[in-house]
Amino acid sequence: MTGKKPDLRSPDSLDFLRPGIHFTPVAGFMNDPNGLVFDGTQYHLYYQHNPKAAYSAEICWGHATSHDLLSWKDQPIALHNTPEGQAFSGCALLDTENTSGLFDGFDGPNIVALYTRSLPTRQSQYLAVSHDDGQSFTSYESNPVLDIGSPDFRDPQVLWHEPSAQWVMVIAEVDRHRIGFYGSTNLIDWTVLSHFGPAGLPTVNYECPNLIEIRDEGGKRRWVLFVSINPGSPMGGSVTQYFIGNFDGRAFTPCDGILRLTDFAKDAYALQVWSNMPDDEAVSIAWMGNWQYCQELPTPDWRGVMTLPRTMSIRQDTHGYPRLVQVPRGLEPFRQSLLSESAFSLNEASRREIGLPESGAIELVIRLTAAMPRPVEHGPVGPTINRFELAFANAGGERLSVGYDVPSSQIWLDRSKLRGFDHAFFTGRFSAPVDTTLYPDRRTLDLHLILDGCAFELYANQYLETATALVYPEQPFDRLYLSAEGTDFLIEALEINTLDKTMERATL
Amino acid sequence: MTGKKPDLRSPDSLDFLRPGIHFTPVAGFMNDPNGLVFDGTQYHLYYQHNPKAAYSAEICWGHATSHDLLSWKDQPIALHNTPEGQAFSGCALLDTENTSGLFDGFDGPNIVALYTRSLPTRQSQYLAVSHDDGQSFTSYESNPVLDIGSPDFRDPQVLWHEPSAQWVMVIAEVDRHRIGFYGSTNLIDWTVLSHFGPAGLPTVNYECPNLIEIRDEGGKRRWVLFVSINPGSPMGGSVTQYFIGNFDGRAFTPCDGILRLTDFAKDAYALQVWSNMPDDEAVSIAWMGNWQYCQELPTPDWRGVMTLPRTMSIRQDTHGYPRLVQVPRGLEPFRQSLLSESAFSLNEASRREIGLPESGAIELVIRLTAAMPRPVEHGPVGPTINRFELAFANAGGERLSVGYDVPSSQIWLDRSKLRGFDHAFFTGRFSAPVDTTLYPDRRTLDLHLILDGCAFELYANQYLETATALVYPEQPFDRLYLSAEGTDFLIEALEINTLDKTMERATL
Repeated sequence: MTGKKPDLRSPDSLDFLRPGIHFTPVAGFMNDPNGLVFDGTQYHLYYQHNPKAAYSAEICWGHATSHDLLSWKDQPIALHNTPEGQAFSGCALLDTENTSGLFDGFDGPNIVALYTRSLPTRQSQYLAVSHDDGQSFTSYESNPVLDIGSPDFRDPQVLWHEPSAQWVMVIAEVDRHRIGFYGSTNLIDWTVLSHFGPAGLPTVNYECPNLIEIRDEGGKRRWVLFVSINPGSPMGGSVTQYFIGNFDGRAFTPCDGILRLTDFAKDAYALQVWSNMPDDEAVSIAWMGNWQYCQELPTPDWRGVMTLPRTMSIRQDTHGYPRLVQVPRGLEPFRQSLLSESAFSLNEASRREIGLPESGAIELVIRLTAAMPRPVEHGPVGPTINRFELAFANAGGERLSVGYDVPSSQIWLDRSKLRGFDHAFFTGRFSAPVDTTLYPDRRTLDLHLILDGCAFELYANQYLETATALVYPEQPFDRLYLSAEGTDFLIEALEINTLDKTMERATL
Repeated sequence: MTGKKPDLRSPDSLDFLRPGIHFTPVAGFMNDPNGLVFDGTQYHLYYQHNPKAAYSAEICWGHATSHDLLSWKDQPIALHNTPEGQAFSGCALLDTENTSGLFDGFDGPNIVALYTRSLPTRQSQYLAVSHDDGQSFTSYESNPVLDIGSPDFRDPQVLWHEPSAQWVMVIAEVDRHRIGFYGSTNLIDWTVLSHFGPAGLPTVNYECPNLIEIRDEGGKRRWVLFVSINPGSPMGGSVTQYFIGNFDGRAFTPCDGILRLTDFAKDAYALQVWSNMPDDEAVSIAWMGNWQYCQELPTPDWRGVMTLPRTMSIRQDTHGYPRLVQVPRGLEPFRQSLLSESAFSLNEASRREIGLPESGAIELVIRLTAAMPRPVEHGPVGPTINRFELAFANAGGERLSVGYDVPSSQIWLDRSKLRGFDHAFFTGRFSAPVDTTLYPDRRTLDLHLILDGCAFELYANQYLETATALVYPEQPFDRLYLSAEGTDFLIEALEINTLDKTMERATL
């Protein structure tokens, strides 16, 4: 492909943008993940879906199953758009004890879906049960099970709260900027427990709340409440914020007044967690998209990507604040090593070029330390620049750059030098301070990057920082540049792998 | 200049980037405003300054005076870098009652500066008094007046709190992410009152706290605490957050758990308020800069711009949340009308071009309403786009664009199509939802824009949204485009003015 500029009007020429290991819909539009449940044998991924066109309309639940959360098998539509409303977001769970009474005589798994039926004037919560391992659902005869007469009340997540021996529903009162907590012993009759919010960003809509216990580094379990908001992200449009605190079976109380976002870029929305995970592992997946431009992305036949599944934990940062740690999960079986080096020097003002295969997903892990002593010196017109940059590039001059400014301990992600998608809301540059707990001399950075078609994930500082970004070059990247400015860097370790394709999708 | 591409290495060719009505240093580097005080006759603007070079080093207090907050007369350096430390940020106030005892026999104005002397290992608070109307200061003999043995304790602001009959100092415990409140009856002896924080963004450093009472729309006075943070803004680098609440003479209590930022772009830092304003008018000024790139801006001889002075008030938004309203202050005498039109139509897919003068500041006020009925329709590959765009442009193809997406009620500011400054942290695109209190049908937008050299200010929705951005085209803008996509717009009013130059600075 080198030097050849594809015709962006031809869908075929965009095949290189289709991810191979990130979940995408076969065709049409996809947004939020839904109904994430492990049924004892396989994982289910349902998702907000319009199979007919690559924009949001007549939303149903698409469905895929997997044994490893990465190799997905497409399944038939599980919940359809009906006269009762579009099948909006919700959860799935196992009613193993048949608390609902809806699985009498059935041998399981007792999969229940609780989700929102959306009409223009009313959003209410529906219950449905599956007797065929999640392939299809039968609507409960007395739906809705929860209706407060609101057109903006949606996205229920339900979990079993053992200490209070009840099901707890967490649901968005969208335009009131609060999360409702409801309790039930049978999944059918719901009583309000409490409300949380407004809190955090003063946005337009709250959506997709998720509540889960996550272990911190000391093994202590902390309650974490995820709340997606749209629009109103400081980065523009959609973003997922989260609160760490306590849930006592009635109310959620945050541990502090700090605002936390799951991501420092802007394509990680509607983060959801798997229910019924073995060992209570906290595993999430989010939609790689932003409502500001998700219906105008340059792939006209399909739009929507899921993040990789991520294992979540909690770690204290430099300042003693608990923060979310997100680690991509289960990639090992799909890795093929391309390059592995250690302890080499990248000299000031030098650049190293590494060739990349023309197609397929690339994983890169690097750890580096700047030789520079702090503080910086001043040249005639400004301070000495001390920066490391890593760039995916191609012969067309496009660059997807990740870098580290050593004096200020900030990382950047720059997708502004790509030409495949130009949109007033498609922000090009993102940055974040790197927490320095692990590297007190503030000269070291570790990065774990995954580039898979239009899906790019960045993890830094042992997974304390995450950036999730859609990227649209006009042509595939075929090379990688490492460069140093103002100081030498020791590259302590560099690994580059390919990641096998895990799904049948149109690709190169 | 049309079509001529200036040589960016020549400082002369950059003269068009020098603002005419926004305050800039004659030469060298400028960051935070300091010591903002009205002395009964004139306004003082001190500022963090390195007169020798356009980067941060050997910081002193620059000084300028004005009778209207816009026409500034440069004054000699007021506080110098000394062996006791750089003269970091602080405040100035009138000790009219001579509570300090340092103005015995003096006829006033009794101007006191309280500020931080900064050494690498220690930051402590110094008091100095002026007997020549703020031209120079005499250091108090027993400085420092406040020292907690910290290298990260700075930026005192002091105000008289009448109900508790004391001076209150608000000061940043920088890396502890909290604001200290101290009390004194003589400006010399300080006692700790309380601390506030951590709150809001989990950042690296807290700086430049300012506490002030601001009237809401009902005339009620609310306490507002501004806290600048760097780095750690979600937009990258530096940002000013604020809290609305109560201050009882001892402690500040926010009215809610909502995060508020003063700006949706990233060049409005270290917001400070004037003390001793007639009628208790709340007037602020902020530094147009961001520590991510402020020392690398393309004007090698001078760097640093202040925002226009802004009158602040508090208004409830759609959701009932109190929010800051910022209105540029005192521009009327400097306005020369270029164009004034009303009630004309901008048709779908049409574009109107308006010529602009080749130099000087431009002010634009527009109010428009989309003809489109909501909700949007879908075309073959996505929803119908319904957008208005206004772009400052030049023959080089550069565009500074502001736009409105009607269906989602979001505005954007796009500086990514300018080529005069390219930096990994120089984010190009910003956006925000427009609060719809005033326009319940969500089809109307009002904008007030000021473009003055490299300084660009955007106010939207009757001043509830503000974006402050440095802009670096390669050549001057000489035209304006108005364009409509997907729907007709009624332009209810359009005014374009020039703004007179108010300071002697190198310009075209």
